[in-house]
Amino acid sequence: MPKIIILNVGTAHALGDHTSSTHPITRSGWRHAWFAERGDIIVSPVAVDGDFLRYLAGTMGFDPDTVTVLSRERLVTDEFLMSDDVLGELGELTADGAAWQLMPCFWTQGVADLAARLGIDSRAGLAFAAQRGSDLLNRKTHFRQFAAGAGLPLPEGSVARTPYELARAIERHLPLTGTVIVKQDDGAGGLGNLTLTRGETGPLPGSRETLKVGDDLPALADEVWAALADELSHGLVVESYHSSTRQFYLEYVIGDDGVPTFLDSGEIRLRPDADPGSTELVWVGLDIPAALPPALSAQAVHHSLRLAELTAQVGYRGHINIDAIATASGDLVFNEVNARWGGGLVAHDICERLLGSGYADRHVAATVRDVPPAPLDAVLRTLREERLHFSRDSSEGVFVLACDPSLVTPMECLVVGATRDRVREIEAQLRKALA
Amino acid sequence: MPKIIILNVGTAHALGDHTSSTHPITRSGWRHAWFAERGDIIVSPVAVDGDFLRYLAGTMGFDPDTVTVLSRERLVTDEFLMSDDVLGELGELTADGAAWQLMPCFWTQGVADLAARLGIDSRAGLAFAAQRGSDLLNRKTHFRQFAAGAGLPLPEGSVARTPYELARAIERHLPLTGTVIVKQDDGAGGLGNLTLTRGETGPLPGSRETLKVGDDLPALADEVWAALADELSHGLVVESYHSSTRQFYLEYVIGDDGVPTFLDSGEIRLRPDADPGSTELVWVGLDIPAALPPALSAQAVHHSLRLAELTAQVGYRGHINIDAIATASGDLVFNEVNARWGGGLVAHDICERLLGSGYADRHVAATVRDVPPAPLDAVLRTLREERLHFSRDSSEGVFVLACDPSLVTPMECLVVGATRDRVREIEAQLRKALA
Repeated sequence: MPKIIILNVGTAHALGDHTSSTHPITRSGWRHAWFAERGDIIVSPVAVDGDFLRYLAGTMGFDPDTVTVLSRERLVTDEFLMSDDVLGELGELTADGAAWQLMPCFWTQGVADLAARLGIDSRAGLAFAAQRGSDLLNRKTHFRQFAAGAGLPLPEGSVARTPYELARAIERHLPLTGTVIVKQDDGAGGLGNLTLTRGETGPLPGSRETLKVGDDLPALADEVWAALADELSHGLVVESYHSSTRQFYLEYVIGDDGVPTFLDSGEIRLRPDADPGSTELVWVGLDIPAALPPALSAQAVHHSLRLAELTAQVGYRGHINIDAIATASGDLVFNEVNARWGGGLVAHDICERLLGSGYADRHVAATVRDVPPAPLDAVLRTLREERLHFSRDSSEGVFVLACDPSLVTPMECLVVGATRDRVREIEAQLRKALA
Repeated sequence: MPKIIILNVGTAHALGDHTSSTHPITRSGWRHAWFAERGDIIVSPVAVDGDFLRYLAGTMGFDPDTVTVLSRERLVTDEFLMSDDVLGELGELTADGAAWQLMPCFWTQGVADLAARLGIDSRAGLAFAAQRGSDLLNRKTHFRQFAAGAGLPLPEGSVARTPYELARAIERHLPLTGTVIVKQDDGAGGLGNLTLTRGETGPLPGSRETLKVGDDLPALADEVWAALADELSHGLVVESYHSSTRQFYLEYVIGDDGVPTFLDSGEIRLRPDADPGSTELVWVGLDIPAALPPALSAQAVHHSLRLAELTAQVGYRGHINIDAIATASGDLVFNEVNARWGGGLVAHDICERLLGSGYADRHVAATVRDVPPAPLDAVLRTLREERLHFSRDSSEGVFVLACDPSLVTPMECLVVGATRDRVREIEAQLRKALA
């Protein structure tokens, strides 16, 4: 069954500019071209370079000419999907009688409308999507409500709907650890989070900047409110901030039958910015699978499955990612849920297709997001020369996950090996070879 | 087990003025004093008249001096509940070692905080309430999402988050019936709803005003957006408007065990305003139980229970009301959910206490909300003289549900009889006697 891969990345995120396709998060969407299989259509905010498509198709073993990329160099919004232009082209492309499937990052109203227009409307979850049901799930405030209802361990915290409530909530949750995190309702990747502390104001995981809490809390609350609240926001989340030893996610896909299937887990790697003046940490990538101690792992699966099941009961069908941390004292605390593809999904998909299901018991995968941009052909030549490219024989090596032909956005690689140490070793060789 | 009845009516509603206690919806809250039993505390936005309390206690058969009313003549907000004054008084009143229960209209964050402060924190659902979980349920936009997920029959419609989306949604949903209803996310009692039509602009059930749809749809959408969207709103609901033959609700209470118990159903009675210039219909009252045809009744119970169960799974505990209509063509369509006491709950409570459970198989109750205000003692004298007051012997007659000593708000009565015809007969006698 061929599928339409819809890279509507960023449409439900607070990326500021809602139509341009130049934001790094949008451009990193190239990695999702790896979802393609023979005969698929990719609806993308950015054109997919022909060389890149040939490279990934060659790696995965299908004919790249069977894949169609539909792009107009603008964000894949609901309006874009329902435009006459796009509807017309997709209508022609899918008029072959095949049983087309949709694979969107977000199940938006526009995706449901598109399904109806293309006659792909038998799928469960479309009625929920048509009412913007994912909005119920992709909100930080709602996460705390659903998670509290499902009994997940949460940081001490609450929901604030006005600057006054924000000041009260900061006052209330600051004493526990001396730091609170304030989360934008609809933020992505920590871009919408600020930390407020009575201690040092250095960069902290999950936060774009750490501010000092002084004597004038109402003024600080007003400042934070102005920075984070927006027209579509339902409020802000305020939580006691815990330093973490692990930050990880668990990803599920909820099938048409409403049953969640566990897909993958991963840990988030961060490092200080080379620029000492930077207010935030650099996201290096994801280590898949998350290497959790046994009891914590069991708790994490137990609780995240409860939330995934609740999400299914509410009516959502599709991918769901649940983020958690292990605190310095070893406690499990859940942070947020995202009803969309996770950042590690494409790595999981590649590994499962090339290494088989259960690959995570025998292999480790690491995405590396901060590789300096370089021309794809030069990178591939270097990988071959240095024998670093992924080999089916050795089941280890490097993939170029995403590559910006204009050399603006950093390159993203996927490194696979038998152990995490081995993966780090290959990564070091990769960085050296490309330096 | 004595209880604290918390009349936090209006706090989560869009009543405009958020601290005054003079709004009719707030003042109609007097009826909730009927929930009181021996030893209870009533936290009320308005003082409860001593004569009224003696009247209702005498009717229900308990000593009114055992009931404490705590009122400061201002709305019972979360801030009010957590004020030193109120906390102090409630702390003293509940320091008797009894197993106090909370019975709030809305399970707000402040109610959860109050429970913790009073040591009544063992109840399920408090963690959900502490995260403002009820906000998940008391939104028109969320209702469409939950209901779509649970498979309830809904009017054709969608959720709009911007004036642009509103215009598109009106355009989309207008053709089906020639009229759409636009619902404020957080409105109460139809106060936040507008109907837009290509037909006649007379008053319609569930709408505060009907506007004409002309040629300039974007301008109309801007006007409606400005009228209905507010700071806390997440968006507006737009639905094809169906004329209805019945408007009814089903009420459940979700227990600590997460199991919904069906309580009562009722039909909404509306009539045209005596003022021909009025843009909305007058809400006469509720007829309990709803007299639905058998198949529609089974469907209504089936679907509303599904939604109540979903609400329980999400984590809510407490009362929930689900509103629906039968369309002119006999179809069942659901309109909204409210996670709070319904307007008919107090009538149900009185009937169950005086007539026994299952009373609705042998009796009919009707609330009458538009009785001209009159002094309580005069009204009670008239009821006795005319033999209209409720009698335990005949199991029929009139209760004064709510009565404004300042004679500003209309009086609300409850009429009980063996059949709906008999209830209408008593109501006519009541209106004549008080005229």
